[in-house]
Amino acid sequence: MLPSKAYAAPAANVPLAPFSFERREPGPHDVHIEILFCGVCHSDIHQVRDEWGGSMFPMVPGHEIVGRVRQVGAEVTKFKEGDLAGVGCMVDSCRTCPSCQEGLEQYCEVGMVGTYNGRERDGSPTYGGYSNQIVVDEQYVLKVSEKLDLARVAPLLCAGITTYSPLRQWKVGPGHRVAVMGLGGLGHMAVKLAAAMGAEVTVLSTSPNKKADAEGLGAHKFVVTKNAEELKSVRNYFDFIINTVSAPLDLSQYVNLLRRDGTMILLGVPPEAPELHAFALIGKRRRIAGSLIGGIAETQEMLDFCAEHNIMSDIEMIDIADINEAYERMMKGDVKYRFVIDLATLK
Amino acid sequence: MLPSKAYAAPAANVPLAPFSFERREPGPHDVHIEILFCGVCHSDIHQVRDEWGGSMFPMVPGHEIVGRVRQVGAEVTKFKEGDLAGVGCMVDSCRTCPSCQEGLEQYCEVGMVGTYNGRERDGSPTYGGYSNQIVVDEQYVLKVSEKLDLARVAPLLCAGITTYSPLRQWKVGPGHRVAVMGLGGLGHMAVKLAAAMGAEVTVLSTSPNKKADAEGLGAHKFVVTKNAEELKSVRNYFDFIINTVSAPLDLSQYVNLLRRDGTMILLGVPPEAPELHAFALIGKRRRIAGSLIGGIAETQEMLDFCAEHNIMSDIEMIDIADINEAYERMMKGDVKYRFVIDLATLK
Repeated sequence: MLPSKAYAAPAANVPLAPFSFERREPGPHDVHIEILFCGVCHSDIHQVRDEWGGSMFPMVPGHEIVGRVRQVGAEVTKFKEGDLAGVGCMVDSCRTCPSCQEGLEQYCEVGMVGTYNGRERDGSPTYGGYSNQIVVDEQYVLKVSEKLDLARVAPLLCAGITTYSPLRQWKVGPGHRVAVMGLGGLGHMAVKLAAAMGAEVTVLSTSPNKKADAEGLGAHKFVVTKNAEELKSVRNYFDFIINTVSAPLDLSQYVNLLRRDGTMILLGVPPEAPELHAFALIGKRRRIAGSLIGGIAETQEMLDFCAEHNIMSDIEMIDIADINEAYERMMKGDVKYRFVIDLATLK
Repeated sequence: MLPSKAYAAPAANVPLAPFSFERREPGPHDVHIEILFCGVCHSDIHQVRDEWGGSMFPMVPGHEIVGRVRQVGAEVTKFKEGDLAGVGCMVDSCRTCPSCQEGLEQYCEVGMVGTYNGRERDGSPTYGGYSNQIVVDEQYVLKVSEKLDLARVAPLLCAGITTYSPLRQWKVGPGHRVAVMGLGGLGHMAVKLAAAMGAEVTVLSTSPNKKADAEGLGAHKFVVTKNAEELKSVRNYFDFIINTVSAPLDLSQYVNLLRRDGTMILLGVPPEAPELHAFALIGKRRRIAGSLIGGIAETQEMLDFCAEHNIMSDIEMIDIADINEAYERMMKGDVKYRFVIDLATLK
């Protein structure tokens, strides 16, 4: 077994603190990765606080992991010692159901094995990336380009793929008008990716203060949704709305900004189910679709796309000892746009 | 002008009564139709009661119209005196916007001209099919086969096209599992049409009493949604759910019956907006889409499809003097499955 260090939540609503545990010895198909950076995702907070139910403690969060391969199992072919590597939201799945066979492991019909707060197939709990190392089957490990700033790559493993996957599924490209709701970890990646794919990108925001930031990220237009005139100017306008908002919101007001046959893609989960006025969909044959991260092959495609287009997350690097404070700031939306833990600070 | 007879609602929530008015003289592009039968649609009740707002009175409802051509204008090429003809939910649109140009006149960006409770482009009110005759531009008149029982064709002009259009848009066919929610005017047509397209059709019903009826209409399976075991057996099962329910309902419970990438098509408008749990869509990349009747070309395609497959509505014929009673029965769901007015009873 591999003695490992981490920060863990000992129980729901208790601050994270240093934690020692053991990782498995790498098997023949495993990659043993020294974690260098780990992004801090809003779902870390949800799960640490047991807001989605079923949380297991102690919990080591973190599923935006990048690092360097320390050793590989005898059967591993994709990686060798010294390679850069990434791990996203899952570390295994059943591999045999139709979704797994189609490369959509995130929709595994048996259930994917989450990188943390999950259970391996032998029943042992999974521990995530707020840790010095991790051992993962090579099929669930991503290759990471040496070209990019590694710390800024980490958030691509969740925020990047979560926004990339629906943009690809719905074939977003030149000629499309894409709106992004919520300029946080997901939203800022949606702006960068949709712009790189050739779409006209508009940020919809309640706050006029975000205009310069939105434009800096590559947005072509900015609409203050509290301004009735501005909102009216984009009624029936967008082909797609990437909705990353997890706060309560009036869904129908935004659906009405879609043109005929337009699609709102839901990525955020508001605490209370929003109301959906059927007329808003029926009158223009509009659609609302969900999307959940992305499959392993598509995650690799996204990382390659980002390397090609020089796309990375905008981040604020933190020491791991500051993780609880970072959570507090995230709850206030006070981060541009992702905290990334420097694991060199984990002693 | 053409002196015309009808039943009209003089004001909201006042019973319909005999009404005399004038139709326009047929212009060069107009078709003058003697109305033989008119279906009674739930939206007639909504509009007569001003439940959607903006109702205009006196109102002559009715947009499921079939009859025989009495005369045609000089420029008319599609019809001649004596032909059967149909008129659905619209009698005009702008004809120049992208939607009209694409044959999707129902989504006309200026607004389609409803067959009743609408305004012609000259501002005059439109009066619908609870009447002895109607004058309509030939571009908005449908050809009707002599092969079918004419009274049973009338409901195809709304209930038929409303269910046919999304089934075609989403390319429903062999290998697909289609569920139909709500076995009324729309639902019973959805069962017949989806089965004729080769899909496996399941009726979802709160009432076990409807099983024999559902099977008689061509459904392959029947699920009582109040039976938790039965409901569980179709979890993650359907490719499509045709939701015709306009009563309050727990949308997420039904969305969970869709398999990955499955689509619920909303056709009904509940009085209160249902709640939509984002997880139900996100976890399986499911979709909810709206759909509104169909374009003129597609309505013709639907009528031709029904003639080829011998598909008609199941109806109960009524005298026009019984229309108010029919409304009461419809409010209780007491009709299999569409009332059709025999206009020969309009003296």
